[in-house]
Amino acid sequence: MSLLASLVFQGKQRVMALDAGDRGLAYGDGLFETALVHDGLVVWWPAHLARLSEGAARLRIPMPDVAWLASQVATFVAQAPARAVLKLILTRGVGGRGYAPPEAVEPTLVLSLHAAPAPWTTPLVLRWCDTRLAIQPALAGLKHLNRLEQVLARSEWRDPAIHEGLMLDTDGQLGCATAANVFALRDGRWLTPPVHRRGVAGVARAWVLANEPGAAQAELSATDVATADALFLCNAVRGILPVGRLGDRSWAPHPALALLQRRLGRSEPAFDPGS
Amino acid sequence: MSLLASLVFQGKQRVMALDAGDRGLAYGDGLFETALVHDGLVVWWPAHLARLSEGAARLRIPMPDVAWLASQVATFVAQAPARAVLKLILTRGVGGRGYAPPEAVEPTLVLSLHAAPAPWTTPLVLRWCDTRLAIQPALAGLKHLNRLEQVLARSEWRDPAIHEGLMLDTDGQLGCATAANVFALRDGRWLTPPVHRRGVAGVARAWVLANEPGAAQAELSATDVATADALFLCNAVRGILPVGRLGDRSWAPHPALALLQRRLGRSEPAFDPGS
Repeated sequence: MSLLASLVFQGKQRVMALDAGDRGLAYGDGLFETALVHDGLVVWWPAHLARLSEGAARLRIPMPDVAWLASQVATFVAQAPARAVLKLILTRGVGGRGYAPPEAVEPTLVLSLHAAPAPWTTPLVLRWCDTRLAIQPALAGLKHLNRLEQVLARSEWRDPAIHEGLMLDTDGQLGCATAANVFALRDGRWLTPPVHRRGVAGVARAWVLANEPGAAQAELSATDVATADALFLCNAVRGILPVGRLGDRSWAPHPALALLQRRLGRSEPAFDPGS
Repeated sequence: MSLLASLVFQGKQRVMALDAGDRGLAYGDGLFETALVHDGLVVWWPAHLARLSEGAARLRIPMPDVAWLASQVATFVAQAPARAVLKLILTRGVGGRGYAPPEAVEPTLVLSLHAAPAPWTTPLVLRWCDTRLAIQPALAGLKHLNRLEQVLARSEWRDPAIHEGLMLDTDGQLGCATAANVFALRDGRWLTPPVHRRGVAGVARAWVLANEPGAAQAELSATDVATADALFLCNAVRGILPVGRLGDRSWAPHPALALLQRRLGRSEPAFDPGS
């Protein structure tokens, strides 16, 4: 997706380029957020900020001053077109060789602005990926920079008719799509896998769990997914995406899904299908 | 460890700085090698090159032309002091947003030269880390850039009297130290965990397996380690490091270990304890 602009900071100091000794490069020692920018504002900014703060606390990366960060982001996205994507990367900063985090850490912040993806107007076509998600409670839930599993999974297909791939974990339970969370409708309730052993605690996922009556976390097998009454993916850039097909299973549009999409559109106009 | 020099290439083109959109930063989408430089030459260069090539093939990152790479590295390390450390990072290059690898990939190469670490003159003192290694066959063995597990494990202690930490995997079997492989002497044979489910196929580890009669791969429990007759760590920068203590277990110097160190010193003079 085409890059519109980018900025790099060491601590609060703007720098011209990323240092080749950054621990984000060396070890994936950092976090990221990907957000929709709509009419010059970051959609769900408080949720993105909260997740970033929680991730920084878990990895013990110093969190930038929140007022300073909010101000930098607001200025940066003010230049955005009506619809765009903000990517924010926070790393532990520049370090020497060796895994031990430096005593005095000055985190690196990279802000970049990208063209918004073209909207998907038809239900998604999915596949199962062969690449599995490892079970790692120490990192589960975080939107960290160690993303080789997703890179390998997404490189399994090039057919543009396939929109996304679902990943099982190494225990055979559903994890997520390569770049989205998954909800399955079973017995009238929307269910999504918990994220304490693998997966990412998605911002759109959290919105659904908080706002859809009966939505809950539950482990799901591949069979649970294939026999669900309806299925959707969600992420913070695209909102809620109905699934039309997974392998040889197909789903007709489901009224519960249309209802949920309308509810999201009322809550966040950026996700209104008519917007 | 202090940085002496660094160089960045996109493809074969030298560039002034790392692009903030590099996939090495975004996803840890790349590989690295850390090698000892001794008298202007990279120790075990063929083994480092072979591992890099194998990793690039598994991740489907285009491997740089080997003659070109060898020539760049040779020129780069010619400026090194008598003893130094070369770090080489190879990434999938600059990409847009999104996990899908770009169709036309121009890999990024970062070379950096660091001061050699001070030699350890006493047997190592180890601890057990709480952070576990995830089971991930798709990435096991590779020296890839997704190293948050090692960062978390190494950040568990700051006591300089503790030299290294051992990591179990999520199944409770020994994996490795945070920055070294592990061998345990049991029934007269040196045993090290296989690396097809987690861990890194270390260059020093491969040397021991190839050159020490009876050395073999075997799964080891924490008890197997604690009840071993001798224990050592190894990596390509420090060679073979005898372990003197792990928790409340201590080991006296073992003749088999002294023999192995002498054999390594004869094969690679850079690791001769007298050098």
